[in-house]
Amino acid sequence: MAESVETWTFAAERLFEFATRVFQHDGVPEADARQAADVLIASDLRGIDSHGVARLHLYHQMLDLGRFNPRPRISIVRETPATATVDGDNGMGLVVGPRANEIAMDKAEAAGAGWVAVRNTNHFGIAGYYPRQALKRDMIGWAMTNASKLMAPVWSSERMLGTNPIAIAFPAKHEPPIVIDMATSAVAYGKIEIALRKGVPIPKGWALDADGADTTDAERVANGGSLLPLGGDRDHGGHKGYCLASMVDILCGVLGGAGWGPFAPSFAVQQEPPVRAVGLGIGHFFGALRIDGFIDPDEFKTQVDDWIRVFRSAEPAPGTAGPVVPGDPEHFYFEMRSEEGIPLVQAVVDDLRELSRKTGVPLD
Amino acid sequence: MAESVETWTFAAERLFEFATRVFQHDGVPEADARQAADVLIASDLRGIDSHGVARLHLYHQMLDLGRFNPRPRISIVRETPATATVDGDNGMGLVVGPRANEIAMDKAEAAGAGWVAVRNTNHFGIAGYYPRQALKRDMIGWAMTNASKLMAPVWSSERMLGTNPIAIAFPAKHEPPIVIDMATSAVAYGKIEIALRKGVPIPKGWALDADGADTTDAERVANGGSLLPLGGDRDHGGHKGYCLASMVDILCGVLGGAGWGPFAPSFAVQQEPPVRAVGLGIGHFFGALRIDGFIDPDEFKTQVDDWIRVFRSAEPAPGTAGPVVPGDPEHFYFEMRSEEGIPLVQAVVDDLRELSRKTGVPLD
Repeated sequence: MAESVETWTFAAERLFEFATRVFQHDGVPEADARQAADVLIASDLRGIDSHGVARLHLYHQMLDLGRFNPRPRISIVRETPATATVDGDNGMGLVVGPRANEIAMDKAEAAGAGWVAVRNTNHFGIAGYYPRQALKRDMIGWAMTNASKLMAPVWSSERMLGTNPIAIAFPAKHEPPIVIDMATSAVAYGKIEIALRKGVPIPKGWALDADGADTTDAERVANGGSLLPLGGDRDHGGHKGYCLASMVDILCGVLGGAGWGPFAPSFAVQQEPPVRAVGLGIGHFFGALRIDGFIDPDEFKTQVDDWIRVFRSAEPAPGTAGPVVPGDPEHFYFEMRSEEGIPLVQAVVDDLRELSRKTGVPLD
Repeated sequence: MAESVETWTFAAERLFEFATRVFQHDGVPEADARQAADVLIASDLRGIDSHGVARLHLYHQMLDLGRFNPRPRISIVRETPATATVDGDNGMGLVVGPRANEIAMDKAEAAGAGWVAVRNTNHFGIAGYYPRQALKRDMIGWAMTNASKLMAPVWSSERMLGTNPIAIAFPAKHEPPIVIDMATSAVAYGKIEIALRKGVPIPKGWALDADGADTTDAERVANGGSLLPLGGDRDHGGHKGYCLASMVDILCGVLGGAGWGPFAPSFAVQQEPPVRAVGLGIGHFFGALRIDGFIDPDEFKTQVDDWIRVFRSAEPAPGTAGPVVPGDPEHFYFEMRSEEGIPLVQAVVDDLRELSRKTGVPLD
């Protein structure tokens, strides 16, 4: 974030339009294309540059190669009033995810709670996008997804789990909502890539080398090493991060019949396919809880405002400006970038220009 | 665990009987007394010595002083088919928790999912007890509770959150179930107490002193310091542990109308009461999901067996015996202690003898 690199700024609407038309070029129907673009741009607007238009060329590549289904028939394969399993028909996660999340919210509308496991789907963008939708309906939203292997369990040197994020959001009244969106690894893989690019060491407790030794050398992580779970080593609670990543893997992978653990397929074309097919695609898990199923929503939101203000005013640690509330950094970026546009680094602009050439969709 | 201390071994049945009769002596009806004792002994059987009969004298003290209601009228104050808020009428968490958890499971039986927020309750024992009940009904169970302040948010030096545990359990077919039960702090406070007793330093990344500086001195933690969230400092993902503890606090405290954050009341008599009353007692949050609301339960359990075996056979890290599966340590203790009895240290035996003298309930 503090890197001084040259950027080019685009209005969010411009990038949304571009992404929509690229998806349409690749055979995605207009409504789905707009939905997929909305998830991508939501990420850029909130400062999570790794999950936004920077990935558009990957989605294009997978669609172009016929690896993703541009017109999935998304179906409910099993359900009760408050639960369902959805088959994404190998559609983009950016399309399957929002549809499955809507099913969870519709079930919550009717029964109080709605929980949906999804199989046969693909990368769904930022997890935090989904619970934010629930806020509009006075619900608490949850989203999780599994992903291809990058993380080693405690006491292992082998990549066995994805960075398996958990997101949950709570509405407030006058304050911005509380939105949690976190990988269950100690850090995202993107932080290893940044260290690689800069040639700087990484802190101990982030990752292992191929032999399973804690390393500060990003190069050794990239060459067959693995990320550590949240907490790091056993002494610092790494078994808890491993527990959380396992929970996400079972809810997303096993429960809906998707791939799990080391057998979750990768998003990228150049990665090897899993050695065993234990299920279909990767898996997501969505939840929605109607707040008025527990408490008057206005009372809840007033208390959440109170909670936020109490936590913001906690005693600051030395040398800090004091605690922030989950969702604050994303909110800060959203306010700024909605006004000023989205800054993209050269490599991303190059990718988009290349996409523009290939598809004939104008970028500027 | 590797401490060599003298212990006295009691059969689980003996301790169960003793705890039941102590609770009855304190005015708790027999069925509730047995339920409460069952939660305590389940903890001792699984090697979590801090949450078992070692705490019986605290419950006795609170009942004896009239601080807990021995005959609570537990009521549903709001509900939908898949959700409810339960008021525990200031009963013991060991009685209120199991009842509320049952309501969640009954709702799941009918609707597919059941989620219950609980207010006006107290310490409920080990969180892992609750999801284990769901396993008997082919459900996935969840439990969380908030607790009195011990943990500082990232960038704060102030105790603002409890160690707020999360538990979840998944049934397997031939393997033992996967049971996750974890505090959202880097370590439990008990580990600070052990270091204090032994006069040894604690690792960096566990806790802060009263000024908010990372410390290896357990004494400085005890004197107004605070635990760090899972992850430790910001660089190692401490903001994620803070997010998880906040999530638990809002679901348990705010959603059901219980105390939250620094205003969650303490379990112990000698602690100061919170400076503000923002709700009633502490709060719990229970969830149950019917597996057949997503997938055939036999198919699910077969896949969980497969998952467990795949993870057990992952490449071991150097100098380790390889990864374990969440719930393995507790399962190991359960097998051993069900056979051989529960070893108690001198201080706990002394407490029980003192309780025996006060209540007239024989220990031996």
